[in-house]
Amino acid sequence: MPPTITAFESSPDRGKGHARDMRVRWAFEEVGQPYDVRLVSFAAMKQPAHRALHPFGQIPTYEDGDLTLFESGAIVLHIAEQHDGLLPKDANARARAIAWMFAALSTVEPPIVELTMAMLVERDRSWYAERLPSLQERVRIRLGELSRLGKADWLDGAFSAGDLMMVTVLRRLNTSGLLDEYPDIAAYVARGETRPAFRRAFDAQLAVFNAAARS
Amino acid sequence: MPPTITAFESSPDRGKGHARDMRVRWAFEEVGQPYDVRLVSFAAMKQPAHRALHPFGQIPTYEDGDLTLFESGAIVLHIAEQHDGLLPKDANARARAIAWMFAALSTVEPPIVELTMAMLVERDRSWYAERLPSLQERVRIRLGELSRLGKADWLDGAFSAGDLMMVTVLRRLNTSGLLDEYPDIAAYVARGETRPAFRRAFDAQLAVFNAAARS
Repeated sequence: MPPTITAFESSPDRGKGHARDMRVRWAFEEVGQPYDVRLVSFAAMKQPAHRALHPFGQIPTYEDGDLTLFESGAIVLHIAEQHDGLLPKDANARARAIAWMFAALSTVEPPIVELTMAMLVERDRSWYAERLPSLQERVRIRLGELSRLGKADWLDGAFSAGDLMMVTVLRRLNTSGLLDEYPDIAAYVARGETRPAFRRAFDAQLAVFNAAARS
Repeated sequence: MPPTITAFESSPDRGKGHARDMRVRWAFEEVGQPYDVRLVSFAAMKQPAHRALHPFGQIPTYEDGDLTLFESGAIVLHIAEQHDGLLPKDANARARAIAWMFAALSTVEPPIVELTMAMLVERDRSWYAERLPSLQERVRIRLGELSRLGKADWLDGAFSAGDLMMVTVLRRLNTSGLLDEYPDIAAYVARGETRPAFRRAFDAQLAVFNAAARS
């Protein structure tokens, strides 16, 4: 039996692939491994049965035999350690690819989530216009630093789990307009999005949303 | 030659051990490995020489022979993979410990950083009083979820790199008053802080701050 992951029954991003199961689906597709998906509702995510898999009541989770994992970063790293295709063989290059995974999640994602969340939930607050520029500036600093890395296709040589995480983090900015200011980063994100494994993963999560929307 | 890490020449937390070199120092102490420290000024961190080690111009970095790493999570994981003491031998328990590392950095730390940063830089803004409760609530949700895990000493059996990361993330709340609302989590943090390896790492970073303050 292939591993089972969980995903939103009806994703709040309406199938744009920003939910964190996308990262895990993409990883499975890159390494050519099958996986099963169990859909969970928002209500079910907060119930004890799901919290036994994920203490923070979120998706995705990963179940394979007697191993249960949560956190998309940990699940992608686990898949990358089990199968070829997402981490270099060279020990130093492998460690650097993992460093980029942490950089994506710990350094680049938080200001992007703060910005995109404020754009969703603070739009009508009195302080929105005053606070928005500082949120954008925090993201621009990170984009500028990434941009300075130069013109290589991927962060550290060959495509790795580090790129997979970074692309999924950066594409959250798709609707913010900020990527337009950094054409090289927009091109990097597009490079990730055109990988066949990305497309398969994207189509799979979109099919879930479309099926829920029709029902 | 032992690995060399970088740390603040003069830490903005005045030696409270909240800078991210603390995590790496603690990891070295847990596995009983020596390390060298190179101190960097805020100005030097943003210069090309340091950015060649750390694209985002931060500390800590890690240099060992021809390997350079950045991101405290990646460095701690690398140390944990090289030496006994921070990851279980059992493959499933090892994967779960790594999941807790990602949970600390990706799920628990961001709302804590948002809160503590707002307490520092938004205190005089017109919206501070209105926004603060929602920032505190986001942290309380995570603390409540951690609290629900029960009375075990550590997150998943024996102390691991997952606990190391989680304790360093949670102790950022020391001055917020929020830990007082969750005595079991306060006790968990205190349990981490009383480990001899933590104390040695803490004293080492404090000595740097005290030396800078005297000079």
